[in-house]
Amino acid sequence: MRHAFIFDVFGTCVDWRTSVAREVARHVPGVDALAFATAWRGEYDPAMERIRTGGRGYVDLDVLHLENLERTATKFGVTLSDPKALNRAWERLDPWEDVVPGLEALRKDALIAPCSNGSIAMMARLARYARFPWDCILGAGVARDYKPKPEVYLASVAALRLEPKDVCMVAAHNSDLAAARALGLKTAFVPRPREHGEGQTTDLAPSEAWDWVAKDFDDLAVQVAR
Amino acid sequence: MRHAFIFDVFGTCVDWRTSVAREVARHVPGVDALAFATAWRGEYDPAMERIRTGGRGYVDLDVLHLENLERTATKFGVTLSDPKALNRAWERLDPWEDVVPGLEALRKDALIAPCSNGSIAMMARLARYARFPWDCILGAGVARDYKPKPEVYLASVAALRLEPKDVCMVAAHNSDLAAARALGLKTAFVPRPREHGEGQTTDLAPSEAWDWVAKDFDDLAVQVAR
Repeated sequence: MRHAFIFDVFGTCVDWRTSVAREVARHVPGVDALAFATAWRGEYDPAMERIRTGGRGYVDLDVLHLENLERTATKFGVTLSDPKALNRAWERLDPWEDVVPGLEALRKDALIAPCSNGSIAMMARLARYARFPWDCILGAGVARDYKPKPEVYLASVAALRLEPKDVCMVAAHNSDLAAARALGLKTAFVPRPREHGEGQTTDLAPSEAWDWVAKDFDDLAVQVAR
Repeated sequence: MRHAFIFDVFGTCVDWRTSVAREVARHVPGVDALAFATAWRGEYDPAMERIRTGGRGYVDLDVLHLENLERTATKFGVTLSDPKALNRAWERLDPWEDVVPGLEALRKDALIAPCSNGSIAMMARLARYARFPWDCILGAGVARDYKPKPEVYLASVAALRLEPKDVCMVAAHNSDLAAARALGLKTAFVPRPREHGEGQTTDLAPSEAWDWVAKDFDDLAVQVAR
């Protein structure tokens, strides 16, 4: 195996928004579950940013998600009976329907792994739920830092014992691909126009001429096999 | 998934000796392939010991194997046409026949991962070859140190977001289990009386009352399910 595809997960592989909202609805009756899920996710980047900039040592995303959940609950004025149970919503995210068949096709000639900000524990359990056939789990858990810091991509490439040019980052987010390209990785854009629901305005189209632009993972596998 | 089994790989999951000898015979005609394989493996522990004791920074086992291969070739007075190709022998190791069905059974109620001194790159490729259905790859590649240093077991347990008591180390080597037990992990001994060929004298029986003693992985899965 001389090539690999590494994947963003939240948004690119899974529909986190409706999946988390479903779990919120189960745990927090009466709240606007989609709004709550969106607000919870809204705390994600600021929480990582403190770690990226050295204001806090590395703690994994499970810890950040739990802290962010408590903060979100306070904003919404609700009391959580079992925040740890609700926090496991991030291990039960439904994949977009093309993802599993696309991964099965791509892995015929390449290694595949998540390069996510999710922890190894979270990604392993999510893979069980969503049936992702990863070869290994890379990303923040291996690098102990958060994307888009270069170390996360470079540690993932190094863990595969490959050169950046032989590893393709697959993401629905142009900024993720820009960070990967700056380090010499190949790039593949797969838009997920419903990640943020109806009326999404971001990442609807490629912002650069990425190495591949595919409508979904099946299409990417077909293009790569050409 | 509130429990996990983590596995030693060389000897416990795979028959490294005859598998490496097969690759040696392909690459180095005329040499005593089993003797060469055994000598190559003989360099393994001293090479890691320098790193364990701080005499050298962490480099992964692929690098050590390649250095050890050159040293072994010199001892045997042979010239290698493509040492890197032969070094990939460690990614093509045949599993003992009970391993894949045993892992499939054990993973029904627990996470499973290698906790080996092999790198993530090596373990991912070996898993493809041997069809090991790991949930993630732990061990030296995550801890950046070598067993039996405590950090390797503890980093693996932490990466699973579990407590040591909920993780069982499975190995054919009593010393590996002793290191794991000292840290609070559960332990399972599965003897591999042919790891070192006919006339093996080590690790034929459990040296302590491990939590499980099983004749093979299938037997372990049956005992665990009781």
